[in-house]
Amino acid sequence: MTVRKFKIAGVQLGPISKNTPKEKTVERLCRLLEDAADNQASLAVFPELALSSFFPRWYIDSQEDIDSYFEKGNITTGVVKPLFEVSKARGIGFFLGYAELTNDGKHYNTGILVNNKGEIVQKYRKSHLPGFDEPTEGAEFQQLEKRYFDQGDIGFQAVKTDPEWVDATVGILICNDRRWPEAWRCYGLQGMDLCLNGYNTASNGTSLFGGEENKALRLYHSDLSTKANAYFNSTFAVSVAKCGFEDGQELMAGSLIVDPNGRVIVQAKTEEDEVIFADIDLDETINGKTKMFDFSRHRRPELYSRIVEQKGSIELSFQ
Amino acid sequence: MTVRKFKIAGVQLGPISKNTPKEKTVERLCRLLEDAADNQASLAVFPELALSSFFPRWYIDSQEDIDSYFEKGNITTGVVKPLFEVSKARGIGFFLGYAELTNDGKHYNTGILVNNKGEIVQKYRKSHLPGFDEPTEGAEFQQLEKRYFDQGDIGFQAVKTDPEWVDATVGILICNDRRWPEAWRCYGLQGMDLCLNGYNTASNGTSLFGGEENKALRLYHSDLSTKANAYFNSTFAVSVAKCGFEDGQELMAGSLIVDPNGRVIVQAKTEEDEVIFADIDLDETINGKTKMFDFSRHRRPELYSRIVEQKGSIELSFQ
Repeated sequence: MTVRKFKIAGVQLGPISKNTPKEKTVERLCRLLEDAADNQASLAVFPELALSSFFPRWYIDSQEDIDSYFEKGNITTGVVKPLFEVSKARGIGFFLGYAELTNDGKHYNTGILVNNKGEIVQKYRKSHLPGFDEPTEGAEFQQLEKRYFDQGDIGFQAVKTDPEWVDATVGILICNDRRWPEAWRCYGLQGMDLCLNGYNTASNGTSLFGGEENKALRLYHSDLSTKANAYFNSTFAVSVAKCGFEDGQELMAGSLIVDPNGRVIVQAKTEEDEVIFADIDLDETINGKTKMFDFSRHRRPELYSRIVEQKGSIELSFQ
Repeated sequence: MTVRKFKIAGVQLGPISKNTPKEKTVERLCRLLEDAADNQASLAVFPELALSSFFPRWYIDSQEDIDSYFEKGNITTGVVKPLFEVSKARGIGFFLGYAELTNDGKHYNTGILVNNKGEIVQKYRKSHLPGFDEPTEGAEFQQLEKRYFDQGDIGFQAVKTDPEWVDATVGILICNDRRWPEAWRCYGLQGMDLCLNGYNTASNGTSLFGGEENKALRLYHSDLSTKANAYFNSTFAVSVAKCGFEDGQELMAGSLIVDPNGRVIVQAKTEEDEVIFADIDLDETINGKTKMFDFSRHRRPELYSRIVEQKGSIELSFQ
């Protein structure tokens, strides 16, 4: 049997203080995963960096202190092990974002997809790191992702999951990636029908990253990115927040599940732990993929070369 | 003096019957352009194929009949000449979509940008032709753009306009192009701060192109495409409809002007001739271009190769 219709859960997290031991956070995630399983979800989506406070908001001097936020070695056997055990015991898959420290000393903002047997079936490393390499003097909160993380080196590799669990073609994005149509399109070109994304996004812009953007505008941008890119690629999408006042900084909520027409099916109402659910039918992606967005009939890749040949924008002059 | 703040007009058109002589239509467009000039607009945006009924809805056997919808030779001296004269006399630029037949027999769905002196400063030919090469039996309305038009061969060449008229970097899209983020990004990578688009879009989906999409959903898709791509590239955008019941087929309205945050500044309220206006300041694009969407700092072109190396989608299998 092939499972195209199933229930999916977005597990929004409230704040995680830097003083909370990771074991406690994993316990909290286990309870939420059990909640999703109790509600017959096949897959639960946690946010980006779901095991700790969003540490890139601070300038941290000591590499040892920085590394304490990262998971080293085999994630299935460390502090996160109970989450894999719940997955296997309850037959529910999950997506989890966490900070990954590799054996050769690389630091990534990583996400993994775990199937309903507690097995990792895909890993992704954030491609579009926002923020800065160097701290900004006088800023209340930094955005130092470019300092603490290496750029993701995996690219956008979609994965076809076990059809007896969920028969999906899954693409993974992390936070800021959702604003970059190139990322979605790379997955769309592999037939993605389910996009998973987790985020930690400040509710208010600062001179560093958003200018004069207020909370409503930043939420509008976030929703718009998920809705439009879901439509352009005719895919379901789940975008899930870590939110609320976390160690003094307000992070936006608004976790949502979107259909392949770019419409919101369900959106979180709170700014704390909240599990949202949607019953989805992946066959609803077929209409878009075979008509408006039948790439094989309509795309013009021979005209798109600027997208790969150029990183920044050129400046034209009047002639 | 460099003009970064100015008034822009979207000139929505109601239906144009196939029985209307082109001279009459051009007269109508001249009056609307004068209306825009009376309101101190610097630039007025007409829709796609603004000189005739949307003829790709019919299967037309005779090439002579097809060609009657096209403009041959120098467009500034033919039936459209009065529009260039109003432009020059009133000092207002315009964008116009029309069907272009070249001297060597090519047929394009074309748009031109004309400055405030009645001079053509840029030409664009639609890249993403929707529809089919062959008529579909039993369909009430066809969508035969792929039959009647050659694919645009120009690509996406932005143009910097005379700063004493409007100091803009303009990108031109036609109708279905607005749904393709690749097209916007090619312009965004040239610093586009004003995107002009005209469309003829059926209000209701059919088995041919939209499936079970109703009018509200198709308008949602259209708006979403303009809003999101404007945000992703931090550009103003003007998308203008030809709309209403045209020779029996209902075309959607909803012409709109969008800011670089992807927010609607103004949207047409009717489904007939209606000029909408917005006072825009192109410097509002700078925040996005230098922060969230500073391409030179954040893009990862080395990961995007699938976008140009592949036209259609590949299919993955479970392993």
